[in-house]
Amino acid sequence: MPSTPEVSDQQRQIEDELVQKVRAAFDHTPDPRLKELMQALVLHLHAFIRDVRLTEAEWQQAIDFLTAVGHITTERRQEFVLLSDVLGTSMQTVNVNYEATAEATEATVLGPFFVEGSPEIPLGGDMADGVPGEPCWVEGRVTDMDGNPVPGARLEVWEADEDGMYDVQYDHGQLAGRAHLFTDGQGRYTFWGLTPTPYPIPQDGPVGRLLEHTTRSPMRASHLHFKATAPGLRTLITHIFVEGDDLLDSDSVFGVKESLVKRFERQPVNTATPDGRDLTGRTWSRVRFDIVLPKTS
Amino acid sequence: MPSTPEVSDQQRQIEDELVQKVRAAFDHTPDPRLKELMQALVLHLHAFIRDVRLTEAEWQQAIDFLTAVGHITTERRQEFVLLSDVLGTSMQTVNVNYEATAEATEATVLGPFFVEGSPEIPLGGDMADGVPGEPCWVEGRVTDMDGNPVPGARLEVWEADEDGMYDVQYDHGQLAGRAHLFTDGQGRYTFWGLTPTPYPIPQDGPVGRLLEHTTRSPMRASHLHFKATAPGLRTLITHIFVEGDDLLDSDSVFGVKESLVKRFERQPVNTATPDGRDLTGRTWSRVRFDIVLPKTS
Repeated sequence: MPSTPEVSDQQRQIEDELVQKVRAAFDHTPDPRLKELMQALVLHLHAFIRDVRLTEAEWQQAIDFLTAVGHITTERRQEFVLLSDVLGTSMQTVNVNYEATAEATEATVLGPFFVEGSPEIPLGGDMADGVPGEPCWVEGRVTDMDGNPVPGARLEVWEADEDGMYDVQYDHGQLAGRAHLFTDGQGRYTFWGLTPTPYPIPQDGPVGRLLEHTTRSPMRASHLHFKATAPGLRTLITHIFVEGDDLLDSDSVFGVKESLVKRFERQPVNTATPDGRDLTGRTWSRVRFDIVLPKTS
Repeated sequence: MPSTPEVSDQQRQIEDELVQKVRAAFDHTPDPRLKELMQALVLHLHAFIRDVRLTEAEWQQAIDFLTAVGHITTERRQEFVLLSDVLGTSMQTVNVNYEATAEATEATVLGPFFVEGSPEIPLGGDMADGVPGEPCWVEGRVTDMDGNPVPGARLEVWEADEDGMYDVQYDHGQLAGRAHLFTDGQGRYTFWGLTPTPYPIPQDGPVGRLLEHTTRSPMRASHLHFKATAPGLRTLITHIFVEGDDLLDSDSVFGVKESLVKRFERQPVNTATPDGRDLTGRTWSRVRFDIVLPKTS
């Protein structure tokens, strides 16, 4: 924990007075929540500056860094989300919003690659749709906290291809490796995806340079994204991770939770598929992920 | 002060563990100062999120806000600096870097309108150079903490025109209302500027919308910017403010310090000017600003 360095009483008073003055400037904010947010932000930002005795050169570097983050950000590249991810602030926001409930499926970060407008697939459909990678049969059931099945729950699923790239990272402008589907009358779902593979978060921008300067790995543990929504139940945004992956302990965005690590069972060449899909000559894998959604509070 | 809301022990532990995990990710940063900065930043950002129990919608609004700040920022428009200014973080950085020293001239914010490449003017020259406004004769002396004159000190001066606009806010692409000059052998300087007028900080961007939603005034107290540099002495970035200005207590960037408020003496029409400049039929003002620079530590 950084401790506030020793400064003279006169100096401390000058710094304290400024904090109070800035907080007071937000006193007349009509929306009480916005007032609370701004006054707390002022408190914590000023505490940071005072604790580390931020130099003006460092302040300028911060301005330049944020400017670079802003300039690389487009409709399809969200470097601010990436920054929030590598600082663990995305994951902490998730923690704060999905308070721990023993039975409910745990949440993790949305990440920068979710986009609206995925195609709908039927149960058993292929969300990969030609995207290169090892096929993976995914199945599970959505229930509420009492174990009741949730029919018609909407599942958005998305993942990177075997080269670690999402559709939106290519120039082709096509959605691929993402889909949505709905659970059946018993809350069950099945679909074909891809066995997840590890990949680095984008390293060609300011966040990549930050990781480089702090000798942090850009690698994300292998995962498959889920977003589950159903009326009256809390929306769940999560991933499942691959048991045995070396990167589980060093995920660059701090997204791994033990309960989300699943066994992906690799199937030998020519193992029959659950739905008769012809994968002659290829390996494939299968995984089960049951989802428990709490009621909205 | 926001207090951390009551959460279950299980929940608190999850949140604490994430903070420790993210801080630990920076443990191997080669540069010890960068390590200190990143670990302190993580601590304070996470404390903010936890204290206010930031919702995911609010997190998304923050991402969108920062994105908008990034997108309006150009070579000539620095909205991140403006954001830092209205949060008082620019001024707090100034405070931290210019520790209170009874005798030295106080510093204030640089602001977003400083640019390199101002023209040099001789002593007594006109930095306004055709920019509209009431002429103002500025004079003073630069000394060190022992009262010794500082010859050859470089003074950068810049200010808004009578419409409250800086040169870089116009499309004409010309520098105007800014100059640099050097003190004489006795540390003295004189120049013609403009009587400062109040103006709003730019309101057409996300920072303007923030001020609007928090019912804060965008107005800056009237001021004239100075940057003073001399070998072996601490560089001073400051303004002088106008005694009697109604906005001294509500400056939108928290830049006002009592010691920087100066008497601008308005001169009746046809008062003779100090250097014989012909201002027949016009009012003008005069102000004295003596600058004391401490040694670099």
